[in-house]
Amino acid sequence: MTWIITKNELTESDLLNTESLFALGNGYLGVRGNFEEGYASGMNSIRGTYQNAFHDVIEISYGEKLHAFPETQQKLVNVIDTQTVKLYFGEQEEEFSLFDGDVSSFERTLHMDHGYTERLIHYRLRNGEEVRIRFRRLVSFTTRELFAIDVQIEPVTFRGQVKVVSTVNGDVSNYVNPMDPRVGGGHAKLLHTEQAGFQNDCLYVMNKTTASGLSTACVSRHAVQGAHQVEMRTSEKAAEAIITFSALTAPVSVTKLNVYTDTLRHEKNLIEKGISIQEELRSASFEDMLGWQKQYLDEFWSNADIIIGGEESLQEGIRFNLYHLLQSAGRDPFSNISAKGLSGEGYEGHYFWDTEIYIIPVFLMTKPDLAKQLLIYRYSILDGARARAKEMGHRQGALFPWRTIAGTECSAFFPAGTAQYHISADVAYSYIQYYLATRDTAFIRQYGAEVLFETARLWADTGHYDNGLFKIDAVTGPDEYTCIVNNNYYTNAMAKYNLLWASKAYDILAEDESAFEALRGRLNLDAQEPLEWEKAAAAMYLPYDEGLKINPQDDSFLHKAVWDFDNTPDDHYPLLLHYHPLTLYRYQVCKQADTVLAHFLLEDEQDLETIKRSYDYYEAVTTHDSSLSSCIFSIMAAKVGDQDKAYEYFNETARLDLDNTHGNTKDGLHMANMGGTWMSIVYGFGGVRLKESGLSLAPILPSQWKSYSFHLLYQGRKLKVEAEKKHVRVTLVNGESLTLKLYGEDVQLTAGHAIEQKLH
Amino acid sequence: MTWIITKNELTESDLLNTESLFALGNGYLGVRGNFEEGYASGMNSIRGTYQNAFHDVIEISYGEKLHAFPETQQKLVNVIDTQTVKLYFGEQEEEFSLFDGDVSSFERTLHMDHGYTERLIHYRLRNGEEVRIRFRRLVSFTTRELFAIDVQIEPVTFRGQVKVVSTVNGDVSNYVNPMDPRVGGGHAKLLHTEQAGFQNDCLYVMNKTTASGLSTACVSRHAVQGAHQVEMRTSEKAAEAIITFSALTAPVSVTKLNVYTDTLRHEKNLIEKGISIQEELRSASFEDMLGWQKQYLDEFWSNADIIIGGEESLQEGIRFNLYHLLQSAGRDPFSNISAKGLSGEGYEGHYFWDTEIYIIPVFLMTKPDLAKQLLIYRYSILDGARARAKEMGHRQGALFPWRTIAGTECSAFFPAGTAQYHISADVAYSYIQYYLATRDTAFIRQYGAEVLFETARLWADTGHYDNGLFKIDAVTGPDEYTCIVNNNYYTNAMAKYNLLWASKAYDILAEDESAFEALRGRLNLDAQEPLEWEKAAAAMYLPYDEGLKINPQDDSFLHKAVWDFDNTPDDHYPLLLHYHPLTLYRYQVCKQADTVLAHFLLEDEQDLETIKRSYDYYEAVTTHDSSLSSCIFSIMAAKVGDQDKAYEYFNETARLDLDNTHGNTKDGLHMANMGGTWMSIVYGFGGVRLKESGLSLAPILPSQWKSYSFHLLYQGRKLKVEAEKKHVRVTLVNGESLTLKLYGEDVQLTAGHAIEQKLH
Repeated sequence: MTWIITKNELTESDLLNTESLFALGNGYLGVRGNFEEGYASGMNSIRGTYQNAFHDVIEISYGEKLHAFPETQQKLVNVIDTQTVKLYFGEQEEEFSLFDGDVSSFERTLHMDHGYTERLIHYRLRNGEEVRIRFRRLVSFTTRELFAIDVQIEPVTFRGQVKVVSTVNGDVSNYVNPMDPRVGGGHAKLLHTEQAGFQNDCLYVMNKTTASGLSTACVSRHAVQGAHQVEMRTSEKAAEAIITFSALTAPVSVTKLNVYTDTLRHEKNLIEKGISIQEELRSASFEDMLGWQKQYLDEFWSNADIIIGGEESLQEGIRFNLYHLLQSAGRDPFSNISAKGLSGEGYEGHYFWDTEIYIIPVFLMTKPDLAKQLLIYRYSILDGARARAKEMGHRQGALFPWRTIAGTECSAFFPAGTAQYHISADVAYSYIQYYLATRDTAFIRQYGAEVLFETARLWADTGHYDNGLFKIDAVTGPDEYTCIVNNNYYTNAMAKYNLLWASKAYDILAEDESAFEALRGRLNLDAQEPLEWEKAAAAMYLPYDEGLKINPQDDSFLHKAVWDFDNTPDDHYPLLLHYHPLTLYRYQVCKQADTVLAHFLLEDEQDLETIKRSYDYYEAVTTHDSSLSSCIFSIMAAKVGDQDKAYEYFNETARLDLDNTHGNTKDGLHMANMGGTWMSIVYGFGGVRLKESGLSLAPILPSQWKSYSFHLLYQGRKLKVEAEKKHVRVTLVNGESLTLKLYGEDVQLTAGHAIEQKLH
Repeated sequence: MTWIITKNELTESDLLNTESLFALGNGYLGVRGNFEEGYASGMNSIRGTYQNAFHDVIEISYGEKLHAFPETQQKLVNVIDTQTVKLYFGEQEEEFSLFDGDVSSFERTLHMDHGYTERLIHYRLRNGEEVRIRFRRLVSFTTRELFAIDVQIEPVTFRGQVKVVSTVNGDVSNYVNPMDPRVGGGHAKLLHTEQAGFQNDCLYVMNKTTASGLSTACVSRHAVQGAHQVEMRTSEKAAEAIITFSALTAPVSVTKLNVYTDTLRHEKNLIEKGISIQEELRSASFEDMLGWQKQYLDEFWSNADIIIGGEESLQEGIRFNLYHLLQSAGRDPFSNISAKGLSGEGYEGHYFWDTEIYIIPVFLMTKPDLAKQLLIYRYSILDGARARAKEMGHRQGALFPWRTIAGTECSAFFPAGTAQYHISADVAYSYIQYYLATRDTAFIRQYGAEVLFETARLWADTGHYDNGLFKIDAVTGPDEYTCIVNNNYYTNAMAKYNLLWASKAYDILAEDESAFEALRGRLNLDAQEPLEWEKAAAAMYLPYDEGLKINPQDDSFLHKAVWDFDNTPDDHYPLLLHYHPLTLYRYQVCKQADTVLAHFLLEDEQDLETIKRSYDYYEAVTTHDSSLSSCIFSIMAAKVGDQDKAYEYFNETARLDLDNTHGNTKDGLHMANMGGTWMSIVYGFGGVRLKESGLSLAPILPSQWKSYSFHLLYQGRKLKVEAEKKHVRVTLVNGESLTLKLYGEDVQLTAGHAIEQKLH
């Protein structure tokens, strides 16, 4: 079973993608997989290092600016570049390059069980002499500030001088592409260098943003093996170490330890703080650090790993995707998980609903501490959401921004941005799911209740009664090919759940009198409000079409003409890059799962037949131009019994980035889809559901596979689920005894024991 | 009866408004009513001179740019400033200023029958000596390039030296206000000066735009009365004449004749052309020019004037509004009539549907040659409209831009811009109205048929059949508080009329075989198409609510909550400056007449009771935040028999700019509303309708008035309509005998004879 990803191609387009694929991160720090020594001249590369949530503030330009359009947005900043380590061989100082020399062999690997990447090069110099070079790098899971590069140079026949020039470069810019709305279109230069220098054996650079007033610093130290001389030098925007080995008589190595700090997390004295972290690390070798990585990952994989029997490429896909999720999720109240994680600059590093609907479900049952962190981030921006609701004309409640880093709305196109009110229900949903998975009532009292109350208040203020039905007008659902509609099924169903659970949270809160009184006082909440929430939930209008016996996506969707798929050229997908939004709005055509997603998240709202018919209907009009679509269709295909489709859609999600099927992996990995891969197995093939009534499973097995297995963490327990050709086995690995539903029937589990049933 | 407007106030805010009110123009050239000598230091003024359609091209910025969003827009340019004439008295050269000296009297007048403005000042110098100064200015209706200023200085007790410094200034900028979406938010500096100099007695300046590559020039000459010396001088961006009268022993005068040319109309040698026009004018005095103005206006007023018996302020209003319409309408294929005419920079000089629905109806029956010119402009941008339809994903047809100068879409916010597809039907409607008013079949064959065919094709491609009904989805009607809706009643009704008349035009065209074959060939039109247009028109879905028995504004309007008017503070109007569009979209609240407008334009689509109920319904939810609303409600109040409301709304339209009731007259006059004032009397109180079946009238008289009268030009005839307390009199002033409907009954008119009936 494979734990490695290998990519040996050296063409520009492959390399750009591999920069994302081989990005390393730990939720705080992210480094794209660029080459230390650089590229051939004229080759494009997106050289990037990011600190989660470290952003500048830029103005949004509008041709026509209307009331309450956000004036500024945050943008993730490409920070100080420490990736550069150049090698020069011999007296002529021949520069090592994979594009200019004689490369006998080149192998590049991502080790997902050990947490590092590696490049092995056998290189022949111009004079015919040979060396072996090994680059390894890691972004530490245990010391969040640390990005380490280890360079080993081994003589084969070459014995001459080796010079290593290692740079800490503050002269950095963001990547921009004005032609693609999914990437930043301007504002490349966001950082200016305030300090560059060295102190003892540490180089340092400190940069400051243009507008947000945030600073970031990097302190780099080199641990060298082999007889050498060191020279340090600085320029206005960079610091450099030149390490010279006068003769390569034995293997030598340079370990470059880069410690990043920033004023969001480390207060003022960034360089001092960096130096002190360096001191703590001084006694550790690169091998030690690799050991810490392994230890951390062993624990992660023991809960998160999914094993697919019979298909290596999908096994690779699921592990790759889980690995990157782990690398990308923020671990502090400032940060979350951006659309591209820390692997690129697409969507400008913004956090979307992707977190709540596609990623938290994974961590919830594999690494709940991370899920909790992501929820705390949303709590940390609740004041901003309340302010935004006011600004949008609401009398009460919290409207979470469609895209943001620091908490304010960063969307510059409201029909597919701010109008996606569902994000507030999505946030609420994730708090509820967390509660169902953990029964962590303390967390609900401290954080969840307030979020549920304020989002419920938003719905109470946004909706209105029409002939006894509670309706929500002028919002946009997940499908961005149909904007500003009335009674979007997804939104209404999610708002209903939000309202209902706000009332339940009121009861949970009430069990702790002091917390109850404090929050009621702070929110000016009276006992009438939960009753109003319940009433609105009960009266919530969920559109249903009597003719087709499906749930319409919104009030008008089914009355529009169906998109002319037959006459749409293949190269016109994704449609959004080829058609004006108004044209898309005019037709029945979906970018992604919308009603189908609602049927997954809230399956008890409709009977199975309605869900099946809806699945069939929407499947025919969905382009999956969004990377958030295939996984949901895979899950729902499994539910409605279409195993082939479930398998087909699973294939699309599992290797979306590895195979660059959306063509823009270079801008960063598709995090939500990565979560969707795990969900496609666990919720899709595994049939797992997490409800107030408990946990349920209903595994099926794609005919292409021999088996699959996964673990689940549930309310303090660990379960193992194994599906094979004929049987399904569920083991309670540890924790209290438990009753769960298997294929709809209650089964009892006790610790250390398995139950086995015939596979359906 | 008043023909003058007097404004003597000197506060900054009054002056800013009066700059617009006293703007002079002739359809080509427009000059705001700024003071020749300038203002007190620190006082704001929008000093503006415009050549209709003379524009620069500027980039549109988007925070998030999607497919087919226009990349650039045109912007009317504030051109070379020739308004400045400064006066210096005595050896100390005491500078004349209304804000710094002792002003014994000041009177400022617009003469609407003579076509000029005038300022009379009695001024006391610091030494106690007195002069009288008279400034007069005109923009010539007979020589479109000419803007003339006449300054007369008369000794009272002062006898000393008078120095007149007259400038032609190329260093000009546009006015910007980033806080108001109705005014340009950036791109102030659009022109750079290429030449400034003098030749013989002519000063000249030539400027070029930054991006559009257009040039404009002004050649100025001074005709001086009284013994004087002249000095000419130039700087990099300006040319100046200094005229010195050594002693003011008798009245002296300086007439400054400014001739503007531009590369849109005058080809290359702009300065040469300007000098040659100056030569043609050399023998004429300012009084001669005033004579030409009078002659031109006498003819205009003889057809256009409306006389209201009993209310001076409204009489002033209607004349003022008609006068400005005449000044603003473009007379060549490059130009139209912008939202603010040539009186200011609001809406960046763009042309909207205002022309077709609010202004052409006036000219159609008072000055049809101007109506025809405005229609030819639309024909001149038909190729652009075809290209835009393609760009928007249509297989065929022409989509006119929502706002434009040179023919391409200039709207940067498509929900309230490009989505207003109705503009294409509005353009078609105006061609049909022109035909009904003139029976000019040659014009229909040369221009109208092609416009009707291409717009009909757009509707055929945009709509679709749903259960046998032809529906149009995802467009925005006139009401910008409700965007991107399905089956907007206005749009569907207008599209229906468009489709029907395209088929009729096909028949009109077919009567001329060679024109028929040529156009059919050029448009690749087959005989099936008119049948499809008829079919779509016949099947056109016009929403009707069975409960309320009204026409809903669109499919969803009536299901939304009604705006909470009771809790909306007065200072929160216009709502668009205080609420996010999404909030407005969520409620039943209208910026302006929408369905009510459709009921006016196409009254035969519904019975009177439906129209009445609809009027009542929409009146309760319309804010009239748009200046295009009151006039339509006045017309329809008259129709449904609510004379008080009709009178009330008429008051709002008649003096909207004179009283600055919308608070932004400083940015330019509200042209559409000005047309609406005429329509409120003629279509409203007069009950005039122009249909295929002929002309009809149904006059009523507001109880506040003694009488009113107006003329109509109709199919080569001139009619006079007089409504008095008890009687209505209709006279066929000249032209062939005619049958028209008076209060629904046929009446026969013969030339020179009147028929009189009891007023209803």
